[in-house]
Amino acid sequence: MRNVGFQDWRQYRVNSERLLSNIEELGSIGRTPEGGVRRLAFSDEDIAGREFCIGLMRAAGMDVRTDAAGNIFGRLTGTDTDAKPILFGSHTDTVPNGGKYDGGLGSLAAIETVQTLIERGYSSLHPLEAVIWCDEESGLTGSLGYAGRLTVDVLATERAGVTLTACLRRIGGDPDRLADAAHEPGDIAAYLELHPEQGGVLDRSGIEIGVVQGIVGISHYEIELIGFPNHAGTTPMDQRQDAMLAAAEIVLAVNEEVRKLEGTHVGTVGRLNVEPGAPNVVPGRVTLTVEIRDLSNDTIDMLWGRIHTQANTIAERLGVELFQERSTRVNPAMADSAVQTLITEAAAELELSARAMPSGAGHDAQVLAGIGPMGMIFVPSEGGISHSPLEFTPPEDCVNGANLLLQSVLRLDRS
Amino acid sequence: MRNVGFQDWRQYRVNSERLLSNIEELGSIGRTPEGGVRRLAFSDEDIAGREFCIGLMRAAGMDVRTDAAGNIFGRLTGTDTDAKPILFGSHTDTVPNGGKYDGGLGSLAAIETVQTLIERGYSSLHPLEAVIWCDEESGLTGSLGYAGRLTVDVLATERAGVTLTACLRRIGGDPDRLADAAHEPGDIAAYLELHPEQGGVLDRSGIEIGVVQGIVGISHYEIELIGFPNHAGTTPMDQRQDAMLAAAEIVLAVNEEVRKLEGTHVGTVGRLNVEPGAPNVVPGRVTLTVEIRDLSNDTIDMLWGRIHTQANTIAERLGVELFQERSTRVNPAMADSAVQTLITEAAAELELSARAMPSGAGHDAQVLAGIGPMGMIFVPSEGGISHSPLEFTPPEDCVNGANLLLQSVLRLDRS
Repeated sequence: MRNVGFQDWRQYRVNSERLLSNIEELGSIGRTPEGGVRRLAFSDEDIAGREFCIGLMRAAGMDVRTDAAGNIFGRLTGTDTDAKPILFGSHTDTVPNGGKYDGGLGSLAAIETVQTLIERGYSSLHPLEAVIWCDEESGLTGSLGYAGRLTVDVLATERAGVTLTACLRRIGGDPDRLADAAHEPGDIAAYLELHPEQGGVLDRSGIEIGVVQGIVGISHYEIELIGFPNHAGTTPMDQRQDAMLAAAEIVLAVNEEVRKLEGTHVGTVGRLNVEPGAPNVVPGRVTLTVEIRDLSNDTIDMLWGRIHTQANTIAERLGVELFQERSTRVNPAMADSAVQTLITEAAAELELSARAMPSGAGHDAQVLAGIGPMGMIFVPSEGGISHSPLEFTPPEDCVNGANLLLQSVLRLDRS
Repeated sequence: MRNVGFQDWRQYRVNSERLLSNIEELGSIGRTPEGGVRRLAFSDEDIAGREFCIGLMRAAGMDVRTDAAGNIFGRLTGTDTDAKPILFGSHTDTVPNGGKYDGGLGSLAAIETVQTLIERGYSSLHPLEAVIWCDEESGLTGSLGYAGRLTVDVLATERAGVTLTACLRRIGGDPDRLADAAHEPGDIAAYLELHPEQGGVLDRSGIEIGVVQGIVGISHYEIELIGFPNHAGTTPMDQRQDAMLAAAEIVLAVNEEVRKLEGTHVGTVGRLNVEPGAPNVVPGRVTLTVEIRDLSNDTIDMLWGRIHTQANTIAERLGVELFQERSTRVNPAMADSAVQTLITEAAAELELSARAMPSGAGHDAQVLAGIGPMGMIFVPSEGGISHSPLEFTPPEDCVNGANLLLQSVLRLDRS
C-alpha cells in the first residue's frame, strides 16, 4: 500500500476537523484576557506550545528531534537516501498579545501534511520534515541557526533579561553545538511555509491564495531636522525656522513619491518626535523615520533618492538643517520561481483563486531562501489585522491553505 | 529746588553707568554655569535678587514696602493727596536658565527712574511707585494678587513641592491678608513696563523702541486624529488610514491659513505625538496642538474657523477620524491708546525710532490693564533670543528704554 498511483495522491486532503481543532487547542495555550495569545519565545507558554506540537508529531508516528538551535523537526523518511529533505513549517511563538493563526496555522498545517501522508501510507522520495522554528517573532533565531548565521553577538542578546544562550538551553537547544544545526546552501530540496497574509490584499479582493513572490527588503532611514526653538508668541511667521513645517512637508513627500511609482512597494513615516514639544515653542528639532519596503533594493534606492532630493529642497527653503542616514537594511529574499509556478498550478488544481504578491512582513522563509528554493503560501487575514487578538483567518481558508501546502509538498516530492 | 520748570524735566536722563552696573550685579545673583541666570520665584536666589532691589530703593530714599502678595514697592510720595499712583516696574524672578534682561531691565529701570527723580529733587503730583512683581514667570502671582485675582485654587498650587501659600510667607507676603493687596479698576493712574522684546522684530528692523499695542490673546486647541495602526510592510498604500499623513497636511494648513491673512497674528503647531510611534507601524493616532495668538479674539476665531474647516476636509479625505477642542483661552489685554501716544511722543522727543507692535508674550502688564491704563515699552533683544543664557540687549538700548520710561512717567505725572 506504500506505492500510490498518479491519480491517487492528487486526491489527498488534510483532515480539516483535526486541523481546526488543533488550531483552537494550540490557541488556548497562553490565552490572554483579551482573547489573544501570549507565547513569548522561551517562556513557559512557548514551551507548552512546543510540547503540544511534539505530542502531535509523535502520535502521528513521525521521527521527532530538536536541533541545537531549538528547532523541532517531525520527519517522514524518504525512499531515496540521496534526496535532500523537503522542509515545511512555521513557528509557534507569538508577540505579547497576538493571534492564533500567525505561526500556528503554518506549523499545524505542516504537521497535518505529514500526518495525512503517514495515514495514507504515502511513500515519499525525499525526507519530508515538518518544522517548528524557534523564536521567530523576536529575531528569527531558529532559522538563523539552521542557516549557520547565529553569531556570538546575537547569542549575547537578551530575552526578558536572559541571554539567548541560556534561553536556547531552556527549550532543549544546545548553544555549544550550534554547528551541528547549521546548513549550507543546497542542503535542502525546498522550503515551504503557509502563513496568514498579515495584510488586507487577499481579504479585500476576495482571492483565496497569495503565491508569495518574495519577502520584501526593508530599508530604514533616519532624518533629523534642526530649526530654531523660538518663542511661539514673539516670533513672526516669516522669522521662524520651524522644524515641524519641514517635517510635515517631508512626510507628504514620502507618500507622494511612493505612490507616484506603480508597484507593490510601500513607504512609511511611523515615528516622528518633536522637540521641545511645547505648544508655545516653535519646534526646534524633529526626528523621523522613513521605512521603504520592496522586492528590489534598486527600487528602494531609487525611491530614497527621490525622497532625499525633495527633503533637502524642503529643508533648504525653510531654513532648516537636515541630517540623514540609512540605519538598517534587510535585503529582499526572493521565492524560487519554479516553486511559485508549482504552487500556482497546485492551487488551480484545487480550484482556488490565487494571485502573486510580495510578503511585506518578515518570515523564517527569508532565511531559508539562502539554503534552498523557497516558496510561501498566503491565506486571507480578515481586515488585514495582524499581531492582535482580533487576527482571524476563516476556517475554510485555513483548510484551503493546508491542502495547498500538502499538494505542493507532494508535487515537490514527485518533481 | 523741588519745583522745576517745563524745560528742566524734559532734560532728565537716568544715570546710565549706574543702571548698567546694577543690571550686571543683579545678573550675577543666581548665575548658572552656562552664563545664564536662575532665580526661580521664592528660591534663595530670588530672595537675594529681591533684597538687592530693596537695598537700592532704600539707599535712594524711597519708602519701601512689601504687600501681602509679595510685591515690592519703592515709593516717591506725590503732592496731590487725591492723585492715584503711577506704577512702573517688572519682575526679578527668572526661568531656570534665563537671561538678565527679562524682568531685570524693567525692574532696575523703574528703580533708576525714581532714584533719578529723587536726585533731581523732582516734586511729583502723583505718587510714583517702582514695583517688583512677585513670581511672574510661573504664574503672574504678584500682579494677580494686586488685582485681587489670586484664588484659593491658585494658592494651593505648588512651586517645587511647596504650596503658593507657604511660598508667599517665605518672601514676606501674607496669604491671610491678600485682600489688603487687592485693587479695583481705577485705583491707579497708569501702569508702565519696560521689557526686552523677546522676539526679533526690533533687532531685525533696526528700530530702537517698540510701543506695545497690547498683549496678545492666546487660544490653544487640541486636535486628535484616529487612523488605524496597520503593519507598515503588509498594508498597501491605498488601504491605509494614516493619522500622520492627516497631521502633516493639517500642520501645513495651519501655516497656510495664518500666513494668508495680513497681520501680526501667529499660529504654531508646537507639540505633536505619534502613536504607536514605531518605524514599521502606520501611525494610528496623532495628537497635536494648535496655538493662535492675536490682539483680537475675533481674528483668532476666524483663523480657527478656517483651520477647523480645512482639517475636517483633510481627515475625511484620508479616512481618519478627527476630534478637536479649545483647551484654553487667554484674552488679549490692550494697551491704553493715550498712553501709547504719550510713549510715542516721548520717544520722538528722545530721537528714538519707534514702531507700534503687539507683545506676543505674556507680562504682568496684561493683569494691570484691568486696573488702569497700561503701556509697555520694548527694546531690542539680539536675535530675538529669550529665556536663554544668550539673551542680550545692548547697553545703549537698555539706557534708551530707561530714559523713555523716565520721560513717559514724567509726561504721565504732568498730564
